[in-house]
Amino acid sequence: MPQIDELVLEPPFNVTRASHVVLNVRDLNASRHFYTELVGLVVSDEDDSAVYLRGLEERGHHSLVLRKSSEATCVCIGMRVRNEDDIYKAQDYFAEQGKTATLADVPYQGLTLRVRDNVGVPLEFCASMEPRERMLKQYQHYRGASAQRLDHYQLQVSDVRQTWGFYQALGFRVSEYTYSNISEMQHLWGVWLQRKGNPHDIVFTQGPGPRLHHFAYTLPDSNDMIRACDVAGALGYAPSLERGPGRHGISGALFTYFRDPDGHRIELFNTHYQHIDLEPALGWDLADPKRADQWGLPAQNKWFTEATSFTDSVLTQPEIRVDPPTLERFLALANDG
Amino acid sequence: MPQIDELVLEPPFNVTRASHVVLNVRDLNASRHFYTELVGLVVSDEDDSAVYLRGLEERGHHSLVLRKSSEATCVCIGMRVRNEDDIYKAQDYFAEQGKTATLADVPYQGLTLRVRDNVGVPLEFCASMEPRERMLKQYQHYRGASAQRLDHYQLQVSDVRQTWGFYQALGFRVSEYTYSNISEMQHLWGVWLQRKGNPHDIVFTQGPGPRLHHFAYTLPDSNDMIRACDVAGALGYAPSLERGPGRHGISGALFTYFRDPDGHRIELFNTHYQHIDLEPALGWDLADPKRADQWGLPAQNKWFTEATSFTDSVLTQPEIRVDPPTLERFLALANDG
Amino acid sequence: MPQIDELVLEPPFNVTRASHVVLNVRDLNASRHFYTELVGLVVSDEDDSAVYLRGLEERGHHSLVLRKSSEATCVCIGMRVRNEDDIYKAQDYFAEQGKTATLADVPYQGLTLRVRDNVGVPLEFCASMEPRERMLKQYQHYRGASAQRLDHYQLQVSDVRQTWGFYQALGFRVSEYTYSNISEMQHLWGVWLQRKGNPHDIVFTQGPGPRLHHFAYTLPDSNDMIRACDVAGALGYAPSLERGPGRHGISGALFTYFRDPDGHRIELFNTHYQHIDLEPALGWDLADPKRADQWGLPAQNKWFTEATSFTDSVLTQPEIRVDPPTLERFLALANDG
Amino acid sequence: MPQIDELVLEPPFNVTRASHVVLNVRDLNASRHFYTELVGLVVSDEDDSAVYLRGLEERGHHSLVLRKSSEATCVCIGMRVRNEDDIYKAQDYFAEQGKTATLADVPYQGLTLRVRDNVGVPLEFCASMEPRERMLKQYQHYRGASAQRLDHYQLQVSDVRQTWGFYQALGFRVSEYTYSNISEMQHLWGVWLQRKGNPHDIVFTQGPGPRLHHFAYTLPDSNDMIRACDVAGALGYAPSLERGPGRHGISGALFTYFRDPDGHRIELFNTHYQHIDLEPALGWDLADPKRADQWGLPAQNKWFTEATSFTDSVLTQPEIRVDPPTLERFLALANDG
Repeated sequence: MPQIDELVLEPPFNVTRASHVVLNVRDLNASRHFYTELVGLVVSDEDDSAVYLRGLEERGHHSLVLRKSSEATCVCIGMRVRNEDDIYKAQDYFAEQGKTATLADVPYQGLTLRVRDNVGVPLEFCASMEPRERMLKQYQHYRGASAQRLDHYQLQVSDVRQTWGFYQALGFRVSEYTYSNISEMQHLWGVWLQRKGNPHDIVFTQGPGPRLHHFAYTLPDSNDMIRACDVAGALGYAPSLERGPGRHGISGALFTYFRDPDGHRIELFNTHYQHIDLEPALGWDLADPKRADQWGLPAQNKWFTEATSFTDSVLTQPEIRVDPPTLERFLALANDG
Repeated sequence: MPQIDELVLEPPFNVTRASHVVLNVRDLNASRHFYTELVGLVVSDEDDSAVYLRGLEERGHHSLVLRKSSEATCVCIGMRVRNEDDIYKAQDYFAEQGKTATLADVPYQGLTLRVRDNVGVPLEFCASMEPRERMLKQYQHYRGASAQRLDHYQLQVSDVRQTWGFYQALGFRVSEYTYSNISEMQHLWGVWLQRKGNPHDIVFTQGPGPRLHHFAYTLPDSNDMIRACDVAGALGYAPSLERGPGRHGISGALFTYFRDPDGHRIELFNTHYQHIDLEPALGWDLADPKRADQWGLPAQNKWFTEATSFTDSVLTQPEIRVDPPTLERFLALANDG
Repeated sequence: MPQIDELVLEPPFNVTRASHVVLNVRDLNASRHFYTELVGLVVSDEDDSAVYLRGLEERGHHSLVLRKSSEATCVCIGMRVRNEDDIYKAQDYFAEQGKTATLADVPYQGLTLRVRDNVGVPLEFCASMEPRERMLKQYQHYRGASAQRLDHYQLQVSDVRQTWGFYQALGFRVSEYTYSNISEMQHLWGVWLQRKGNPHDIVFTQGPGPRLHHFAYTLPDSNDMIRACDVAGALGYAPSLERGPGRHGISGALFTYFRDPDGHRIELFNTHYQHIDLEPALGWDLADPKRADQWGLPAQNKWFTEATSFTDSVLTQPEIRVDPPTLERFLALANDG
Repeated sequence: MPQIDELVLEPPFNVTRASHVVLNVRDLNASRHFYTELVGLVVSDEDDSAVYLRGLEERGHHSLVLRKSSEATCVCIGMRVRNEDDIYKAQDYFAEQGKTATLADVPYQGLTLRVRDNVGVPLEFCASMEPRERMLKQYQHYRGASAQRLDHYQLQVSDVRQTWGFYQALGFRVSEYTYSNISEMQHLWGVWLQRKGNPHDIVFTQGPGPRLHHFAYTLPDSNDMIRACDVAGALGYAPSLERGPGRHGISGALFTYFRDPDGHRIELFNTHYQHIDLEPALGWDLADPKRADQWGLPAQNKWFTEATSFTDSVLTQPEIRVDPPTLERFLALANDG
């Protein structure tokens, strides 16, 4: 197995964790119902044009913002920084890089900086949010999956290695990665990057991009995942269950993927591991099916091909083509016997 | 929805529950490993030619017998009767019916009667077994799925309505059933039959038969199903996980299906309901996908087509053909996007 | 260990299971809140004087009736019989015994017979109820403990052996029992009696009686018990959690006991075992602490001393006094260290 | 509620997390059995004088070291630092403070520094350990509680405020705290301190000290806690279950406390929350019973009074006496009814 050439760098400013995602949706009521009744998020504030939601344990005002729109795109993904000083340091850092970084006044957020990464992903760095009550112990309000907090994003990008460079410079470390053997060359297909001490704050895999493949919330317990699937069935969201339950090889998480009413994909998961110590990243061959699912059940093709575009981002195709890893096996299973 | 024409009859003798299944396997060690380490059964006795297993809560000597053989068939399925009187009543009853019923001396079992039902399924009626310790509270010996007890069988038969007649006369009641609309005729496709007060001791669905589609053990908890899948992955049994986890519409059970090293299929499930009161059976249209899985995930084709033959039984094809219900949807999902 | 002298008798009529309990409560709204939000029962019907509730999987109209009253007593406990014929057979049977048995017109119930057992417990035998939708798969309506169905009653009586005689004659079998050594005599302290094939439909233990010690509902999963405790804490019902979670030695059930707003005690439990086969009952020495809790945590004294009186029943003290089994150990633990 | 006067300081070196605890035990085999079969830890190495154990997800060589001894004491608790540079920075820092800090050669550990904190607790700072396989996905080896990783320590000290000062200077933040009203003065009774982004790496509460009250491992799932209690009962460890299961108000964790064969206390818990953002610490009145257990069940007295001494540490009594918070309520419950 090839070892990735990771540099652990002193970051120019302190990113602490994945923070919030802003989605355009076409029907606020339909999306609100999906995220409160199935996912179990709590509404912090709402008006005719937006709904602000947080997980049951979250004290920050929102980790998901739904905005009424005519298109189903992702507006931006957010990263939390330690404090306001980090925002100003970030501004200086990006200026040195020749990037346009703009301070923005964002409802319910403290000092916020907007910038695009080197493949065009719109990012928001934010130092604080209005506090709201942690609902962690308000068990009478648990619904559906009882999602606790936003954990990470996964994006498709046309060049994983290049994208990784941007985040490595910000102090993101690689927990795991996948590679593919292309004419005797090791080709990096995916990187799992983290700041907060578990396997991922942001993940990049190869594909037409940049696109948001999914964002992920943690659940308190495996049973909450089963309850989520059961509530999905009862509420008519069975067609929204795209994949799982299953067990990822990478990260070790028990997972389920749902598509929201606009097709945005959300992962609900629990039980991954602590990744705080400096240690070599764990590599996986893309051809190893246990990478994706230890239980042996392959993803549907659309899990690999469909994703959410970012508003105003231009889609780029990967130069080196790697076929989605599970189509053949899936069809073989379907046609077997 | 058509209502099934059920007769609740005073039974000629008292069948109390599904009791035990006897399987021919080609490699006793391989099968023993599968059933103890993954399923969690306990070995009651074994020798070079057979392994006798029971679930963790079972006091009877065995609910599963593995016999060394050159072929992977099912020898018979067993039903428990209340006491020895019931064996003699059964003998008289089958004699009146013109059926050959033979008293047999079976290791570790009390008085046992052998007979074939009206579609050729080899049955054993048994009034008692040697007792063994209930391992229910020996939690340190729980392994894999921690299977508690045998619950039911599912068989494919060429004529469901005819087969049902045999069991209705023995006092089996219908909890649920499926039908298909064939040229404006209601065609009975499956019946869920019970004696012990939950949805099923024996189930018949239409197909080339008689064949044993699966036998099923209960698990104590939903988490034990997730643990079973995880242990399967860890022990190299991921290819044996054929279907699930999912939630049946019929019976409401949370289920997973595994294939053992010889391809015999076992269902691991929990949480179904009590069916004691006299009440109309619940009917399902075969075309309703929620019948099979409330979460919307279809079975693979082989789940419908593959099953275990009974030793010396002749296979009969159904006269009225009904296509397996989920192929198209499954392929559509596979090819989607 | 002494073996109990059980007779398995052909019953004069067919009792199939524990059916329903009728409680007098002083504040209908307070009780309704407790049983719907914490226990998770569903309201089938209600008016100013009564609330009728059922478990999530129950098809019968009610398993719990709350009646507005000035006193907190139990009106009666109910048993289901197979069909109307059994009601008439029961009427004849009790008449032969010289007992007053009265046919009654009870809302939402089919043909119903009222009688008192030989220690004065008011019983209702009922052959049917109005059907209601099984909510089993309506997971979006699961609340608190998500109680599935009524399972059994436990009563204190002054003479366990005498009371047992009444129920043995009706075909109830003993699954487990407790005895105490009193001056070299084996004294029967408790019997666990069943008709439906699990360890209990009705349990009698020694104490001033007759009194209803508790009634019990099954939960789908261990997690639902933890959720129940958490919801109790969140809704202000923490003082109502009297005992548990713990694991009974007898029956092997995972249990929790709550007191409702009037002090009526409800057990929430899951995972016990099948008791269908004829087998010797399992005996426990009252002095064995693992009988009560395998985890070693004793009950509070009030768990042994407090219970609900039946309306118009006269309380009788046991002739042979046996001290509640856990007081000393409990205090020892409290004062230890 | 009084707000604690927290300073978030730039730390002189980078402590990343609680790392390992070293215990003296009198019978290595007895302790090994307890920690592998009940807690579920994995043995990394062992010889006649010591056993090195790690949790199922841990990659570092050990988080628990058992050393054969004639006394049941705690040798030291360990903290992980980011890298070797941090060890040297720590050495300099403590030298400036006038503290004796010694580099030590510790088996299976990288560069290690030994020092005592300002109340005499023996600490080891360590920059790396020999790697071992993460057993996270080796589910066939899960046993008992299936403990995943060491999470935190709780210590009794005679002066909480003074002790806190030492750790605040190292960059530890307060997530929650308890205070008591003593003659109109707010007296700090406990602080929950963290470096790794959840509620605690080390906790200090008031009592004769310094003593190790407990160390805590995380479990993957609530069900693993129930399984732990069940396995404890089956293996004869029921008397070792000292408290729980219950739900802490502070941290929101589902908890159980066991005493090992030498009386060292271990907490097994799951589901607490993320504490990364800068936010005011959460204060609790010591008199509020929901602080300790949301379900309302008080701890036994010995939970408050018994703890493990550190080798060669001198015990100091608190100057300001605060009675253990739950004795009265516990006895009231015991004597009630």
